[in-house]
Amino acid sequence: MAAKKIKVILYGLGPIGAACARVLAMRPANYQFVGAVDLDPNKVGKDVAEVIGLAEKTGVKVSDKVGRVLARDAQLVVHATGSYVKQVKPQLIQIIQAGKNIVSTCEELSNPWAQNASDADELNKLAKQYRVTVVGTGINPGYAMDTLPVALTAVCQQVKRVRVKRVVDASQRRMQLQKKIGTGMTEQAFREAAAKQEIRHVGLSESVSLVARGLGWQLDQIQERIEPVLATRRVETEYFTVEPGFVSGVRQWGRGLIQGEDKIILELEMAVDAPEAYDEAWIEGTPDLHSLIKGIHGDISTAAVVGNTARRVVEAKPGLLTMVDLPVVSAR
Amino acid sequence: MAAKKIKVILYGLGPIGAACARVLAMRPANYQFVGAVDLDPNKVGKDVAEVIGLAEKTGVKVSDKVGRVLARDAQLVVHATGSYVKQVKPQLIQIIQAGKNIVSTCEELSNPWAQNASDADELNKLAKQYRVTVVGTGINPGYAMDTLPVALTAVCQQVKRVRVKRVVDASQRRMQLQKKIGTGMTEQAFREAAAKQEIRHVGLSESVSLVARGLGWQLDQIQERIEPVLATRRVETEYFTVEPGFVSGVRQWGRGLIQGEDKIILELEMAVDAPEAYDEAWIEGTPDLHSLIKGIHGDISTAAVVGNTARRVVEAKPGLLTMVDLPVVSAR
Repeated sequence: MAAKKIKVILYGLGPIGAACARVLAMRPANYQFVGAVDLDPNKVGKDVAEVIGLAEKTGVKVSDKVGRVLARDAQLVVHATGSYVKQVKPQLIQIIQAGKNIVSTCEELSNPWAQNASDADELNKLAKQYRVTVVGTGINPGYAMDTLPVALTAVCQQVKRVRVKRVVDASQRRMQLQKKIGTGMTEQAFREAAAKQEIRHVGLSESVSLVARGLGWQLDQIQERIEPVLATRRVETEYFTVEPGFVSGVRQWGRGLIQGEDKIILELEMAVDAPEAYDEAWIEGTPDLHSLIKGIHGDISTAAVVGNTARRVVEAKPGLLTMVDLPVVSAR
Repeated sequence: MAAKKIKVILYGLGPIGAACARVLAMRPANYQFVGAVDLDPNKVGKDVAEVIGLAEKTGVKVSDKVGRVLARDAQLVVHATGSYVKQVKPQLIQIIQAGKNIVSTCEELSNPWAQNASDADELNKLAKQYRVTVVGTGINPGYAMDTLPVALTAVCQQVKRVRVKRVVDASQRRMQLQKKIGTGMTEQAFREAAAKQEIRHVGLSESVSLVARGLGWQLDQIQERIEPVLATRRVETEYFTVEPGFVSGVRQWGRGLIQGEDKIILELEMAVDAPEAYDEAWIEGTPDLHSLIKGIHGDISTAAVVGNTARRVVEAKPGLLTMVDLPVVSAR
């Protein structure tokens, strides 16, 4: 890495994109910003440092001229504009055709074969054609509930079932996230919004499918279920006050089945009154494993995973890949 | 993998080599034995199945004619003959020159740059020349105290220090291992044997160095220390009886320093009276992480890691690599 800095274009400077950019900025020996794209008129024309919150100017200004920025010499685009493959696909195609590798925070892109197989095949083909690598990642989906449990199975001769539980304390998180999980709603309003998929964590099906990919399993079916978490006491966050009986967050399950049998069970709880945050996994196999990890933060760790994956994406073979296809990602 | 089986030559059919072979035999769709080498006259001429303990014959007989077996068509040699690079190097060279990829249980080979840098450079160059991949691995060194903590740092923006503690319950392990850790010795005899390096876990320096490699850290110094664990009660295993005050096992530390500061601290306890087996890691950084894993078995997991790494070795680019250079290893 010391030999040559990786030239980076930032694409999308919302809270997550900005956080990813700050991680790369912490490694000035390895990464150099050469361009930044955002459509927000409040950001266009400003130095990247001002937009993402760095002390020193970068000399790179935010632009809304996507094509012009993508024409610059760069090895990597850090892409953070949306959660859904169909929504970001035109952007990805433009970046690929500009010959740039992509690391993206798009949740569904963490394993697009789960729910967007034909788009995934198309992007994979295009990435190979232009000899670039495309990877979607983040803490979840992308790591905590999929890549990490898959990596744990390295010590197993056989695996029968993978169960993962992630509990996120949403009380200190961004307002947008607290809103996304239904904080403060009535149960009735939550269920209506959830039925319209307005309230949910995006990526559980992708994580289930990524675990299966890592283990070489062919799933017959992936199921998702969502329930509200109801506050049992009054909870106050910076943005919301939740009375007892109102929604404090969301509990979601993703299941992967083979011949009717639960092979992968992922449970995610994100609530402003979560008693404690942790990541727990049970691998049933030879041997049985249990892991309990404390400290994996949502926003901090998503930015970390994206920043840490960056160099692996640049080094990897061309194509649309997933985290279980890349060499071990680590903090560097 | 379904497309074509990987043809495998087994080199070394002691307890560990046999256990690794049994893991591959559990995956008949992916691996096929085409040869087996062992110098033990009690094994030569017998079917591999008989030697490693499989119900069905493989049709492959154990041979002591190394060159003849290595001349066969195969993509991979599973090598399990010794712990030290200098001891196994001539074997590795012969295998490389026969054009075969290698996954080896040699402890020092898990990161040969730690203590055998010139041998490592030589093997790396030769492997590239013959376009084969060479990887040393196992549960420890190779995974529990190095690759896994490195993988955990993926969720960190910065890492200041890595601490790992592994406690192994040796009471159910092979006699050879109980002997290796000094079980039943007097403290005096232990200290004399330890000074001559007759008693020790091999690989702690390699693990320290592998963590550093995974994090891109340049260590100034690696230190190892060894102490006996003394029994506080009478302990009986299948092979030994340990009276209170006698040695029940070993406690070892490996430290990696940068400018006099402890950056990596690995502690390993292997004893026949270990209260509980576990793997614990503390990552000091942003964020701080703590992980506690139960269930990683020594012999079962070494065979698992070797068996699970096999396909990654065949797929990888040529050269002498380590576990932190390979794509995520998983049970498949």
